[in-house]
Amino acid sequence: MQTLHIQLENRSYPIYIGEGLLSQIKLIEPHLKQKHVAIVTNTTVAPLYLDPLLTLLKEHGIKAFPIILPDGESYKNQETLNLIYDVLLKEKCERTVTLIALGGGVIGDMTGYAAATYLRGVPFIQIPTTLLSQVDSSVGGKTGINHPMGKNMIGAFYQPQCVIADIDTLKTLPQREFSAGMAEVIKYGLIRDEAFFNWLEKNIEGLIKLNPSLLIEAIQRSCQNKADVVEMDEHESGVRATLNLGHTFGHAIENAMGYGVWLHGEAVATGMVMAAHLSKLMGWVKDNEFNRIVKLLKEAKLPIDPPKITEDQYMALMSMDKKVVDGKIRLVLQKGIGDSVITSDYDSKHLKTTLQNSNFSV
Amino acid sequence: MQTLHIQLENRSYPIYIGEGLLSQIKLIEPHLKQKHVAIVTNTTVAPLYLDPLLTLLKEHGIKAFPIILPDGESYKNQETLNLIYDVLLKEKCERTVTLIALGGGVIGDMTGYAAATYLRGVPFIQIPTTLLSQVDSSVGGKTGINHPMGKNMIGAFYQPQCVIADIDTLKTLPQREFSAGMAEVIKYGLIRDEAFFNWLEKNIEGLIKLNPSLLIEAIQRSCQNKADVVEMDEHESGVRATLNLGHTFGHAIENAMGYGVWLHGEAVATGMVMAAHLSKLMGWVKDNEFNRIVKLLKEAKLPIDPPKITEDQYMALMSMDKKVVDGKIRLVLQKGIGDSVITSDYDSKHLKTTLQNSNFSV
Repeated sequence: MQTLHIQLENRSYPIYIGEGLLSQIKLIEPHLKQKHVAIVTNTTVAPLYLDPLLTLLKEHGIKAFPIILPDGESYKNQETLNLIYDVLLKEKCERTVTLIALGGGVIGDMTGYAAATYLRGVPFIQIPTTLLSQVDSSVGGKTGINHPMGKNMIGAFYQPQCVIADIDTLKTLPQREFSAGMAEVIKYGLIRDEAFFNWLEKNIEGLIKLNPSLLIEAIQRSCQNKADVVEMDEHESGVRATLNLGHTFGHAIENAMGYGVWLHGEAVATGMVMAAHLSKLMGWVKDNEFNRIVKLLKEAKLPIDPPKITEDQYMALMSMDKKVVDGKIRLVLQKGIGDSVITSDYDSKHLKTTLQNSNFSV
Repeated sequence: MQTLHIQLENRSYPIYIGEGLLSQIKLIEPHLKQKHVAIVTNTTVAPLYLDPLLTLLKEHGIKAFPIILPDGESYKNQETLNLIYDVLLKEKCERTVTLIALGGGVIGDMTGYAAATYLRGVPFIQIPTTLLSQVDSSVGGKTGINHPMGKNMIGAFYQPQCVIADIDTLKTLPQREFSAGMAEVIKYGLIRDEAFFNWLEKNIEGLIKLNPSLLIEAIQRSCQNKADVVEMDEHESGVRATLNLGHTFGHAIENAMGYGVWLHGEAVATGMVMAAHLSKLMGWVKDNEFNRIVKLLKEAKLPIDPPKITEDQYMALMSMDKKVVDGKIRLVLQKGIGDSVITSDYDSKHLKTTLQNSNFSV
């Protein structure tokens, strides 16, 4: 097991990464205020991991009850959040209850937000069960829900007590979702860690085959990269925005297709190709670098071509994105592999060309 | 004008207290991130203070638009909060927008919570227009909404950029609401400041008549007392709970009668009498101290006798209150005037006697 310590302004918390972690009570118990736990999970994850976890907790005298939500990004909304509040209130949960998020990013974001706002804040533990949530939402404290008018519009910055990333849970993850997680892993290489990108090129096959030690290393290096960025900039005023590489394009794709049709990571992968393409047109990324990016994403079984969306639709959706300052669309773009920049200083004609391109194959 | 600086863990903010403050742009402008403001207010306050404020902002090149909510505690809920989100999204407000809460405690709590959660946090400024909100919600960062199952169940700790307490706004405040604010003022004397309690006994008549210098002093000393407590304990794990003197009884009264029938301050006043009564039965408060408490509250035109609520109803409602630890009702009780204690170490028979008493007149 690897343990990573995330140090933020006021406090720090550990991320445990390894095999067989879900049966280790010592990773959970020391982080509880009192022996009272609500496990928030969904209808897909519950049949796989809920009962063993409930049994483990009960064996150690910890009062635990589940809150099982419908599965999917389309349920990351106010109504589902209210279901969590309602159960917590019905169970008379006090400030000493700890929420456990057992599931992917949607469960983590909603549980974290419920924890941030129930009685003005109760502790929570994250048990991410998808690769995406293990490398992304487990670091940085972003919690929240979607609004009919946009993704993640309502939320809070709120840190967990600890994160338990058990790679065994990846064995039950559909290939498509695993690849979606790989998109974020590759992103860390692209934005700030050329050595990691090179390592990924070398090990992508083993990763796809779920080699445990490779997985642990990939998750650990991803979380470390994210932690480094977040520690520099906890509230996303500056450098943290580079973590949104591919996201402004990606959110537009997700939104245009209807949330849940494209997986978040798939949209981000295609968004990263678009960002790299625009960067190439700007002369910031070389042809062979662009080709390596496309190749690695393809090998990770990710889509690289966007769906049919008109340029106008892109522009409308992209300016809804919250990374707009003074009405101008700022984008995260590449300056080679392992270096990125947040800028509105690009040629609009080139953006147009990228938005009109529907085939990025090399 | 008096300026009080509230210093919390990570940052500090000023509270301006005085006359004619609403026409002073220099109290607002330096606190804006950009010249973009949403003023959240209600149908009662808007006709009185909205237009001059909008004009002032526009004269100084600040883009401002109002969000006018229905007035009353019964609207402090998810639906009304959603109205705020909807307008902010429709107006394409970015992270650089500043929310201004123009109104009483309900407006302050909801606006603060909207600010805490819109795009995971935008700045806000409080302009409290009731005595209660000037001495209570302007310090401590408590924001939130009610849930059908209880008051303030959903919320966040979130600090404003500044608070502007203009005592001119008290001239338009109904007498009943002014008195409700006085209940919280008197509370600070009771829980920790005997000298302030004595000063209030001496000056209650002038305060009721809205003498400006007396009002400024009362607000300043109240905020200072609250700030001292909050600074010791920002997240309400310990001593801050003394600020809830009268609140556990008071919330039960408000809840039993239906929110809005009794004003919060009125319920707290009666709750403080009940707490003092139980303290007297415990031998912690002398007869003459109890009498002084009842007398001052009466002179502030506050109710001292509870409505007809059965003991069982009290017990059920009080154990819903979030200041319960391990299922036992902890109460804030008096040890004389100017000293208070949070305890579950009282005689249940005495609590019963207090709950059954419906006439506390002396």
